[in-house]
Amino acid sequence: MALADRWLLPDGVKEMLPPRAHQVEALRRKLLDLYNCWGYDLVMPPLMEHMESLLTGVGEDLDLKTFKLIDQLTGHTLGIRADITPQVARIDAHRMTGDGANRLCYCGSVLHTHAVNGLASRNPLQLGAELYGHAGIESDIEVIALMIETLIAAGLEDELSLDLGHVGIFQGLVAGAGLSQQQTKQYMELLGRKALPELRDYLAQLDAAEDVVHNLSLLPTLNGGVEVLARAKQQLQNPSADVLDAIVYLETLAGRLQERYPRVDLYFDLGELRGYNYHTGVVFSALTPVFGQAIAKGGRYDAIGKDFGRARPATGFSTDLKVLADLTVDTNGNAGSILAPQGNESELLSKIAELRSQGERVVQQLPGDTSDDAGVERRLVKQGDSWVVTQAS
Amino acid sequence: MALADRWLLPDGVKEMLPPRAHQVEALRRKLLDLYNCWGYDLVMPPLMEHMESLLTGVGEDLDLKTFKLIDQLTGHTLGIRADITPQVARIDAHRMTGDGANRLCYCGSVLHTHAVNGLASRNPLQLGAELYGHAGIESDIEVIALMIETLIAAGLEDELSLDLGHVGIFQGLVAGAGLSQQQTKQYMELLGRKALPELRDYLAQLDAAEDVVHNLSLLPTLNGGVEVLARAKQQLQNPSADVLDAIVYLETLAGRLQERYPRVDLYFDLGELRGYNYHTGVVFSALTPVFGQAIAKGGRYDAIGKDFGRARPATGFSTDLKVLADLTVDTNGNAGSILAPQGNESELLSKIAELRSQGERVVQQLPGDTSDDAGVERRLVKQGDSWVVTQAS
Repeated sequence: MALADRWLLPDGVKEMLPPRAHQVEALRRKLLDLYNCWGYDLVMPPLMEHMESLLTGVGEDLDLKTFKLIDQLTGHTLGIRADITPQVARIDAHRMTGDGANRLCYCGSVLHTHAVNGLASRNPLQLGAELYGHAGIESDIEVIALMIETLIAAGLEDELSLDLGHVGIFQGLVAGAGLSQQQTKQYMELLGRKALPELRDYLAQLDAAEDVVHNLSLLPTLNGGVEVLARAKQQLQNPSADVLDAIVYLETLAGRLQERYPRVDLYFDLGELRGYNYHTGVVFSALTPVFGQAIAKGGRYDAIGKDFGRARPATGFSTDLKVLADLTVDTNGNAGSILAPQGNESELLSKIAELRSQGERVVQQLPGDTSDDAGVERRLVKQGDSWVVTQAS
Repeated sequence: MALADRWLLPDGVKEMLPPRAHQVEALRRKLLDLYNCWGYDLVMPPLMEHMESLLTGVGEDLDLKTFKLIDQLTGHTLGIRADITPQVARIDAHRMTGDGANRLCYCGSVLHTHAVNGLASRNPLQLGAELYGHAGIESDIEVIALMIETLIAAGLEDELSLDLGHVGIFQGLVAGAGLSQQQTKQYMELLGRKALPELRDYLAQLDAAEDVVHNLSLLPTLNGGVEVLARAKQQLQNPSADVLDAIVYLETLAGRLQERYPRVDLYFDLGELRGYNYHTGVVFSALTPVFGQAIAKGGRYDAIGKDFGRARPATGFSTDLKVLADLTVDTNGNAGSILAPQGNESELLSKIAELRSQGERVVQQLPGDTSDDAGVERRLVKQGDSWVVTQAS
């Protein structure tokens, strides 16, 4: 690397400078305070862990996204976390006691070997909340509501929409079709790309029953407004009880969310699985017209704690705080500083300390440095025997 | 790794659970607010960078401490930062304009391949402040004062002491002795261990002038209270002007610090270089009897920006926020929550939202979950037509 290029950051890696970093910090505080008011306790899991801990119960996607390291102390393979949710699940399963509901939240950096999409950085600041120990619809509603409140607090309430799906529908149809693991993977890949002609050819050579082929080709078309749910019930042929339960679950959820957040548009995509690595039930993502990708997403993931010795129902969401801060209109940075003169007389130093303890930002000039003079609005000056703040002329 | 051990963290890696994580966050806010009041702007450099950027102008120590990764996008070697200061220097040198003073602060995770000492974790939460663009003693005093204020704000003002040294004394003596690079390294290693008999043997076979040998063997003994400075001036034989300037610098600094912080004890160790990777002038570390290692350290490092195209005077300090939070007495965690009943009537939901917007922590019970019942102090209950908060009986 040439000397002149040493300041370059790696591709897709982003840093926050003033005043943006200050805004990220302000939003971080506002949102962690919000989670605290909802009863969510903060946890700070470490940046690196054993690979076995980071990847328990999660899919191949996350493995490929995770940077690996060798621990020089033990020779073990460690990973830099690519997702904080499995860490929080470990904490709930192993470090916390009690069988009841447990609400946890977090905010920390993660690294990705490849950006998850064209708008994402490889070093998101992941912020999220998770609710463990409750399997009913109420906990899903609570975390979806908290995700919406997160976006409202970030100033993104206009034209907010929610994409909803349910992994149980895909799983029920695939189980009913008796697909092998390899076939399921191929089907999932075609479904993810919504590659309809390819999917038709693939299903044609499967040699499956007619209703199976019908259902598997119908799934990628089941998206749109809430009417999709009625259409699914009507058009799916001989769906299993699991599939019907999942559709009814989404209907109930839709009703409760419309009641509580009438301004949020609801969309359904029953074949959507992309980016949901470890989910087992309802999945959801939030969208806003000012950003071309989901700005927050989450869902239910009931099995993840099993590998840590305690399978607990779980539901939660996460977002990238840096993206949220970028989309948030800059309200204001720092209030105007007060410029104090150089010197070490105790009266001057006491006055500066007093102003700072009142929350004022006071910059004390350094000898020979006049860079702060330009644009300063207030100054600390000596009038008679006392130091006073005056408007700069 | 056995299933049962998946919850184990790697050796020396530490995580923060409730309520400690909440205390770390509270202290983080308090200290970043303090830096803001002193005119320091927050920056958020990335967790990983090109190795060439992380290690410019710094010593071998930091290289060995840094975890390396291969960037799958480019094949380049990346590092997970082991120290944030060189990143902030890069930002000052390249991303900020203006020749005047520039005050920056940061708080973020770093990783170390090996813990720096027996009390340290391998994943500190590094917090610090840096002042660029000013070469005089006033900027050193400002950052030392801010380091002391950091420790006072963290509740560690009792029996605080400061260890001071100056890299210029070592450098001046070594330059005057005409030691080769290899000899300097050996001398530095013996000095670091204060291995006096070995040092005597080493110097004896150097075949150097008598005053050189005298000075090099005197250096490791030049430690103690402020009287050490007078002793150094008296006992060093034919010291160069650089060495004398450095001693006078420390005398001036000591006077100004004693005036400003009379309760802080000052110690001097003129041969102390350990852990100062890139420093060029005064170095300092803060100690408290409740912790067996320095709890904060820093110094002047004027050359580090050169490799980024702009050598600027620089001085700063850093600390591990997790260590500070561990030493801080737990004042109080969350104020008592209010337990609200399950339900989705709009009056209930509005009342919960209202209480939360007032900063109250309100946990809404989930159907079938009674884990929150025990020990709850306040409840939201319906009395007549309205919802009111009552003391739990």
